[in-house]
Amino acid sequence: MVYQQRRLTLLNQVKPDSVVLFAANQIVYRNNDANFPFRQHSDFWYLSGFQEPDAWLLLSNKHGKQESVMFCLPNDKLAEIWHGRRLGVDNAVAELAVDAAHDVANLQEKLVDYLDGAEHVYFSLGENKANDECVMSVLEVLRSAPKQSKLAPTSLCDPRPLLHEMRLIKDEHELSLMRKAAQISVQGHQRAMRFSRPGIYEYQLEAEIHHEFLMSGARSPAYGSIVGAGDNACILHYTENSDIIQDNALVLIDAGAEYQGYAGDITRTFPANGQFTPEQKQIYQLVLDAQLAALEWYRPGFTLQQASDKAIEVITDGLIELGILSGTREENIQVNAHREYYMHGLGHYLGMDVHDVGDYKKDGQDRAFAAGMVLTIEPGIYIAPDADVDPKWHGIGVRIEDNVLITSDGYEVLTAELVKEPDAIEQFMQGSTQ
Amino acid sequence: MVYQQRRLTLLNQVKPDSVVLFAANQIVYRNNDANFPFRQHSDFWYLSGFQEPDAWLLLSNKHGKQESVMFCLPNDKLAEIWHGRRLGVDNAVAELAVDAAHDVANLQEKLVDYLDGAEHVYFSLGENKANDECVMSVLEVLRSAPKQSKLAPTSLCDPRPLLHEMRLIKDEHELSLMRKAAQISVQGHQRAMRFSRPGIYEYQLEAEIHHEFLMSGARSPAYGSIVGAGDNACILHYTENSDIIQDNALVLIDAGAEYQGYAGDITRTFPANGQFTPEQKQIYQLVLDAQLAALEWYRPGFTLQQASDKAIEVITDGLIELGILSGTREENIQVNAHREYYMHGLGHYLGMDVHDVGDYKKDGQDRAFAAGMVLTIEPGIYIAPDADVDPKWHGIGVRIEDNVLITSDGYEVLTAELVKEPDAIEQFMQGSTQ
Amino acid sequence: MVYQQRRLTLLNQVKPDSVVLFAANQIVYRNNDANFPFRQHSDFWYLSGFQEPDAWLLLSNKHGKQESVMFCLPNDKLAEIWHGRRLGVDNAVAELAVDAAHDVANLQEKLVDYLDGAEHVYFSLGENKANDECVMSVLEVLRSAPKQSKLAPTSLCDPRPLLHEMRLIKDEHELSLMRKAAQISVQGHQRAMRFSRPGIYEYQLEAEIHHEFLMSGARSPAYGSIVGAGDNACILHYTENSDIIQDNALVLIDAGAEYQGYAGDITRTFPANGQFTPEQKQIYQLVLDAQLAALEWYRPGFTLQQASDKAIEVITDGLIELGILSGTREENIQVNAHREYYMHGLGHYLGMDVHDVGDYKKDGQDRAFAAGMVLTIEPGIYIAPDADVDPKWHGIGVRIEDNVLITSDGYEVLTAELVKEPDAIEQFMQGSTQ
Amino acid sequence: MVYQQRRLTLLNQVKPDSVVLFAANQIVYRNNDANFPFRQHSDFWYLSGFQEPDAWLLLSNKHGKQESVMFCLPNDKLAEIWHGRRLGVDNAVAELAVDAAHDVANLQEKLVDYLDGAEHVYFSLGENKANDECVMSVLEVLRSAPKQSKLAPTSLCDPRPLLHEMRLIKDEHELSLMRKAAQISVQGHQRAMRFSRPGIYEYQLEAEIHHEFLMSGARSPAYGSIVGAGDNACILHYTENSDIIQDNALVLIDAGAEYQGYAGDITRTFPANGQFTPEQKQIYQLVLDAQLAALEWYRPGFTLQQASDKAIEVITDGLIELGILSGTREENIQVNAHREYYMHGLGHYLGMDVHDVGDYKKDGQDRAFAAGMVLTIEPGIYIAPDADVDPKWHGIGVRIEDNVLITSDGYEVLTAELVKEPDAIEQFMQGSTQ
Repeated sequence: MVYQQRRLTLLNQVKPDSVVLFAANQIVYRNNDANFPFRQHSDFWYLSGFQEPDAWLLLSNKHGKQESVMFCLPNDKLAEIWHGRRLGVDNAVAELAVDAAHDVANLQEKLVDYLDGAEHVYFSLGENKANDECVMSVLEVLRSAPKQSKLAPTSLCDPRPLLHEMRLIKDEHELSLMRKAAQISVQGHQRAMRFSRPGIYEYQLEAEIHHEFLMSGARSPAYGSIVGAGDNACILHYTENSDIIQDNALVLIDAGAEYQGYAGDITRTFPANGQFTPEQKQIYQLVLDAQLAALEWYRPGFTLQQASDKAIEVITDGLIELGILSGTREENIQVNAHREYYMHGLGHYLGMDVHDVGDYKKDGQDRAFAAGMVLTIEPGIYIAPDADVDPKWHGIGVRIEDNVLITSDGYEVLTAELVKEPDAIEQFMQGSTQ
Repeated sequence: MVYQQRRLTLLNQVKPDSVVLFAANQIVYRNNDANFPFRQHSDFWYLSGFQEPDAWLLLSNKHGKQESVMFCLPNDKLAEIWHGRRLGVDNAVAELAVDAAHDVANLQEKLVDYLDGAEHVYFSLGENKANDECVMSVLEVLRSAPKQSKLAPTSLCDPRPLLHEMRLIKDEHELSLMRKAAQISVQGHQRAMRFSRPGIYEYQLEAEIHHEFLMSGARSPAYGSIVGAGDNACILHYTENSDIIQDNALVLIDAGAEYQGYAGDITRTFPANGQFTPEQKQIYQLVLDAQLAALEWYRPGFTLQQASDKAIEVITDGLIELGILSGTREENIQVNAHREYYMHGLGHYLGMDVHDVGDYKKDGQDRAFAAGMVLTIEPGIYIAPDADVDPKWHGIGVRIEDNVLITSDGYEVLTAELVKEPDAIEQFMQGSTQ
Repeated sequence: MVYQQRRLTLLNQVKPDSVVLFAANQIVYRNNDANFPFRQHSDFWYLSGFQEPDAWLLLSNKHGKQESVMFCLPNDKLAEIWHGRRLGVDNAVAELAVDAAHDVANLQEKLVDYLDGAEHVYFSLGENKANDECVMSVLEVLRSAPKQSKLAPTSLCDPRPLLHEMRLIKDEHELSLMRKAAQISVQGHQRAMRFSRPGIYEYQLEAEIHHEFLMSGARSPAYGSIVGAGDNACILHYTENSDIIQDNALVLIDAGAEYQGYAGDITRTFPANGQFTPEQKQIYQLVLDAQLAALEWYRPGFTLQQASDKAIEVITDGLIELGILSGTREENIQVNAHREYYMHGLGHYLGMDVHDVGDYKKDGQDRAFAAGMVLTIEPGIYIAPDADVDPKWHGIGVRIEDNVLITSDGYEVLTAELVKEPDAIEQFMQGSTQ
Repeated sequence: MVYQQRRLTLLNQVKPDSVVLFAANQIVYRNNDANFPFRQHSDFWYLSGFQEPDAWLLLSNKHGKQESVMFCLPNDKLAEIWHGRRLGVDNAVAELAVDAAHDVANLQEKLVDYLDGAEHVYFSLGENKANDECVMSVLEVLRSAPKQSKLAPTSLCDPRPLLHEMRLIKDEHELSLMRKAAQISVQGHQRAMRFSRPGIYEYQLEAEIHHEFLMSGARSPAYGSIVGAGDNACILHYTENSDIIQDNALVLIDAGAEYQGYAGDITRTFPANGQFTPEQKQIYQLVLDAQLAALEWYRPGFTLQQASDKAIEVITDGLIELGILSGTREENIQVNAHREYYMHGLGHYLGMDVHDVGDYKKDGQDRAFAAGMVLTIEPGIYIAPDADVDPKWHGIGVRIEDNVLITSDGYEVLTAELVKEPDAIEQFMQGSTQ
């Protein structure tokens, strides 16, 4: 079982005589007593596969004995009629392949025993105040009971560096889910392209995308979908999606499906009416050129910084050529002149979190790409409506983002099926038949 | 302007020399740095119409001078490119029709001045720890500065009873939004009924509903949509919606659109394949009879308890007739025998929150319906798969819920357009042509 | 019984349907598990006379019924062998003249009932975080249980303004204790004057004073005793008391006994060797003149500000005469020139707290003295060792402080028995026979 | 310098790339704005010798470089006139022999830099909420700034086990202070014995003791002095000391001086009138026999448990002989029959804290005495006034406690000078001449 294997892998990396603790997420409320849909904490999910709130996972190698323990809500007929089914303590052992399970109501009391005599506690301090206080108070109980021969752990370690290193390199199980998330995300964008026309609301494209996601079993978008037309495309995290789409506007959509805990993250930019204007096409082509050039650096041994430098070089050259920047490549690069129009990074890790975990540096050095990493690649150019350039460029915002798996000898674009050449986009949109 | 009027109405009800404070909601995070869609706090929204987080509304009648003040984020070009547009301090005064606006970064310092010399502070203690601490610390500053002639308020009053009494009676502006929310909710259910067929997933009906909501401008469901087929219909807040729908199953859908802050809340139960079985139809008819009988009590001067008693009476009679309960009506009512199959209340207030605010009692007495209240009416019968009755009833779960406005001389069913007679449902489903 | 009477007086001033809560102090720790001597909270003590920690006093006039309730630790044989005797729940009713008593372990649960249906809660928010949270959580329980017909109070009022107004005017019971505190404080200063000689440590004078206090039944000084010789007299709150006293040094002692909860607060300044130098005597006489002149304003109808202005006038005149200030009285007063040498206020309220409670202003105006107030009167002059004046004045620090009761037609100096004329001091010190 | 040496010793024991943090104590308040005398945290004092509040000590061996840094209050002329002298940042380096000093107002900001790149942080979590939050928030800043190349420590270690092991074995500097604390404590008890007579209050003996302490430069008792006469002697932590001493009563005094941070801890029991009754003498002699027998086990290689077993054996035998217990030694020991009369432990570590730090077990085993440890030895017998024994024993409470240094080849009783043979006590008391 994949979760059991991951727990063992983690336990084999922590120090001897350690207890490792992960808390599930809590239900959070939206307004009054109506809650947001529950989303499990990615770390907890990765190690347990368990989808309920009010739970804690404990791993231990104390005194050389490896074990996994789940604390969860017990079965309760009345509570389940009202609030939904629970796995229950008794089923947890078999279903989750743990060595023991307990009622989470007894967490503190049980933790006193599990932590007694351990030397290290691994726990993600600082994520949730109530959880922090729970662990602190258990440690305090142990520290204040030397007369009862209790022995408190003397170090509190952060499990995240170890766990996130694991999460950074995706295993086969994860890759199959990520391919599916990418596939569904592609379909969502296809629906939006085909539905697009001037006069509709931005949120109606969002509706198309989310319908496709949910129909395909992706129960939530992986992040707030961005559908920005015209000037709105120049706001990086525009999620109001509330305007009417004008003719001749470009539409920038940044949306991805979350499938069984894994995120897709795609951006496409297309003309609302199916036809790029010449200026739109020029900027679009430049962003695409930058993306394709940078992509060649998404290979083991190279770094995100190198790929990013390549994208900046292409964009800088292009902006000079278009007359948007003046001066030489070197002069512009020296002062980061592109930042006025391309102000974000080239990409980020992708996985259970859309901005996925994992260090970008090792010992102060940029980290090399390695097989099993998944990243986005997403250059962009955004020319504000009041930018100090020829007004013909005003309000053009373009981003092209794909999801890339680093393979042992190169890369694989997980979202390759979605059109991105400008001509291909125009053809795809005109072929719309819905 | 409606919000300004509401603020005045509230200010006219608080004690003299009061300052009233409401905090906006904060952004809440879903996983890592990905957030849930922002939803404004209903109280704050009701009084300001303002849709940003990180804001506070202050109303004051200190020293006889009425004023409204907004604290909000200031305009900031870079931050807005990254995170979205802000109204800004300068625009707030005109846009929100307040007397003054300040950068929320100066909140504590400004509150010291605004609260100095006031006698009462109205604030909703206990909703948000950080907000509570903010107000407490301002009071502490004032209390510890008598030598600087600061005068701390001596009472901290709860604004909710006054404000929620206002919110309980819907004004024309609100009713037009609620009619729209009801209308969109109806359309969502119609989509689901027409799409239903055995073999699809429950969440695919959810997809249809949410698509309809969003297409119509309802940017979010008002609560977690429930789509439960077969046994799942007997779990009151089943929101997994993850099973395949079997032939001959009943499908219970409890879903409502939120339109500009107002909730619809409709439940319909229908046969997955378009045709009720005889047992399903018997139970369905009984619930419908109960609903229609109870509805006649939704009139000014009567109480929810009276309507509820009527529904219980009808359901008890029906269950006896069907052989599910034995004994007389009186015997069964005395011991609340219906609770085994109808375990929830008849209805609740509806408005900005799906379980809307407002007291159900006045001076210890059940409160009478009054014109302008909106409530749900939602009796149900749920026969568990292991219930101790003839197995032919097992796993039948039915709820029928409509939204009702109390009018000056009776009631108006806001969701009347949606079919609920069993024959009408079967016809509607078969007539599906989309 | 005096405490019962005070509780009634307070209850008669709070709004109808109120519950009033006061928490006892907690034990505080000094180092590891060793605690400081327990001191009851003055407000709690004033209303109950009860000397244990872990207790709450509740007063109620809910539904027109006045009652007093004590929550305290129950009798427990083993706990009392280890930690000392407790009054116990059963004895509390009779001993403390309350209407009911409960185990403090049940506080929260009982408060839910006591507060249910009350309109106002009086509680001193902001003094103790754990207590605040306790009251907040009780209110939250009530607010979230409208369906169980619970009715939460809607205002949280500060009891301190009412209670402190009571504490400001001392009753006969209090005055007898304050006379005793003054008397013991006088004896402590007499011991120190007689023991003084060059070559001893400042803390040895402190030892004499504290011995006298404790021998007389004053179980603690009312505040950290100040024994500063030479330059140390110019540090207002010097409590190290660690230096050897030099010949020709002035010794400033600010010390007062706490007797059954009431503070004395006396300052005397005297020559370590029993003989003032001419410069010391000149400064001393000036401070004394200021004190005696200001004292004439300690009468009903006048204000502390008026008395203070008089002291400033005398000191300013004197400093000009001595050549320490130059210019006219008016010029110096205009710029507060005295502040360089007399930088503190003339006096403060005195009672259960050394800086006792009570407002110094009423409606923004200086408040008039009234019969039953007790205040200190304590002008001083402190010439820093590096002050920009003739070096002969350097390091002279003098304060003369007495405790004054405002009577219906004037004042009574409670500490009059202690010598303060310079000659009288010299005689008293030489008459030392110990 | 002794503090510098201790810091190095500690730094040599922590893991590489560590930062060690210790916070000074805060001022704590007694009533309103009057504070208790400041007592420095023992750990902080032990490593710095610094006596001010609002300070932090930081030790670091990050990147192989050892350094000590003090954060403290800066010099401020006005604040120092009001609140007392400060060492100041500039003087701290030389006075405290640290490598650097900073204004404590910049603590958080500086800690971000000091902790950046360290692997371990040693900090005593759980002692002070505000300090915990300070450290947590620094870690959070580092953890959330990987893009700025910040590197957060991944383990939070408890410095107490290492430091308390150091504090457990007293060095020469400490032993000279402890001898002085013992000497002053002896003198305090001598004053009390000589002053004792029927008719005085218990607190008057306390007054004598504290006067002696303070006169000798011990600025505070090391813990709340216990002066219990008659039945009060049977309450282990009786500190009211408020009763009149009756003729024929035994007086139990448990009091010790704190001298420059080190505690004495002596108990003597003597007849109020100078003459033991026969029953008093019998019980007294039994306790003394137990103490002397147990003392022979206070040698390197033996354990506190062994000494305690010896005391229990002697007391059990004696109680049988006196007819207070019946049955055999074995029977009584098996059921811990002595617990009814001797319910506490034999002794505890003594040092900067009266119940000093240090583990009593090592790897689950009782720990052997080692040279440099200081402990109390304090058997007792307490016969409650209602005990089920011959009434002639009622209300007799006796404890005899000395302070013992374990030496390389045995022990040294630091408090040997104070009489404890019953005849010697009687002689000493009669020789009283005061």
